[in-house]
Amino acid sequence: LAFTSNRVQRLRRLCNDKAERAQENAFVIEGATLIDEAIRAGIVIESQFVAPGASPCSGAGSAVNDLADGVMERIASTASPQPVIAIALKPKLHIADLALATNAQWIVVVDKISDPGNLGTILRSAEAAGATAIALTSGTVDAFSPKVVRASAGALFNIPVYEGVTVEEIGEMGFALWGSSSHEMQNSSVFTAADLSGKVAIVLGNEAHGLSTNTKLDGWLTIPHAGRGESLNVAMAATLLCFEVKRQHDI
Amino acid sequence: LAFTSNRVQRLRRLCNDKAERAQENAFVIEGATLIDEAIRAGIVIESQFVAPGASPCSGAGSAVNDLADGVMERIASTASPQPVIAIALKPKLHIADLALATNAQWIVVVDKISDPGNLGTILRSAEAAGATAIALTSGTVDAFSPKVVRASAGALFNIPVYEGVTVEEIGEMGFALWGSSSHEMQNSSVFTAADLSGKVAIVLGNEAHGLSTNTKLDGWLTIPHAGRGESLNVAMAATLLCFEVKRQHDI
Repeated sequence: LAFTSNRVQRLRRLCNDKAERAQENAFVIEGATLIDEAIRAGIVIESQFVAPGASPCSGAGSAVNDLADGVMERIASTASPQPVIAIALKPKLHIADLALATNAQWIVVVDKISDPGNLGTILRSAEAAGATAIALTSGTVDAFSPKVVRASAGALFNIPVYEGVTVEEIGEMGFALWGSSSHEMQNSSVFTAADLSGKVAIVLGNEAHGLSTNTKLDGWLTIPHAGRGESLNVAMAATLLCFEVKRQHDI
Repeated sequence: LAFTSNRVQRLRRLCNDKAERAQENAFVIEGATLIDEAIRAGIVIESQFVAPGASPCSGAGSAVNDLADGVMERIASTASPQPVIAIALKPKLHIADLALATNAQWIVVVDKISDPGNLGTILRSAEAAGATAIALTSGTVDAFSPKVVRASAGALFNIPVYEGVTVEEIGEMGFALWGSSSHEMQNSSVFTAADLSGKVAIVLGNEAHGLSTNTKLDGWLTIPHAGRGESLNVAMAATLLCFEVKRQHDI
């Protein structure tokens, strides 16, 4: 296919345009390693696009489009493009399922995080630590953008991601809301001393502004540092908090 | 100063060239926030370079060079260059000091890590968790490159960094060597169950190849995952391991 083909133009829009991804309920996965991981995780691959000389991933059972020379370079989101790109369908989720979580389950709520690398790391931490799901408020970077897909290193395919939620509705589902803060807050606990053993939600706020202090939470978690004040970023804090919940849940 | 000035050309070499940094024992700090952090930490600022319209950082007591229009854009390592750049002196360290560490002290050894972002995160974790020092084997990315300086978010200024060490000599100094592995190894312990309360070194290996299994260690640490196999990268593992050592050292 040439760069001007309708199918290539659609692929390019799905790479670059959040609204297009939302409307089509589809997203783009770059590279055979990630596509294979998605297939293993049961993600439906709609079609693949293959640069000259490369092979499509097997097991996808999907339409394969051969690209003309130089087309991949004009589509891909990285300087050294992968020779295979896939369009995948976003898993269909119902927020009602999250309300059915038992006391043994816990989740991560991401409120207006803007950096794709941070969201990718948070997805990896939550998935590795056995979280039931991740919930994103509107205003958070799109978890299905190529950058987050790449940064999540496949974790995105292995944990349900609920989009467009509010912190309040997570609280109404019976999750105890624990906010993460780099500052000492009223009603804050050292993360290893708080009781995170039940149906809890770890709530992470924006890199620059944190969580609004108006957010109604059950408590704030702090990570004491031996060094200077704000040494950890939100993604590093998320890793520590997720594995503390894992420890307390005995997962 | 014009781009062709000797001082600007030297600044550019210090940005781009590891050998130049090693020979001069100097490195480059980009941006007022990081320069201020360095000054607070007692790093010696040799000189500053200032774009038209910007102000130098105060408290540095160092020579200030005003750059001509457009020069900063040709030097800086980022797409949106900071208006102030400083040349700083690398702290002088003696490996013999590390040998004097007490049983209450612990360090991180970085063996051939290649990604600047990963080393930056490891520096932040080690500093925040109260490590006495970081030691780098040769073959590790330069901790004083602009990318690592930026990624460490100031942690580099607040923890001693020993370069060109070997894992063996750290062991000979009496540190118990604990390697991090994403695979189950012979002689491996779950990180929260290992005794890390004494004079220990957490040893982190290359992103792709890990630590050589020939490395003589006192033990291997594993981080059990609830999700898929290799969900965490070496920087995330470092964060968890450093804070576990912190917990056991009661820092």
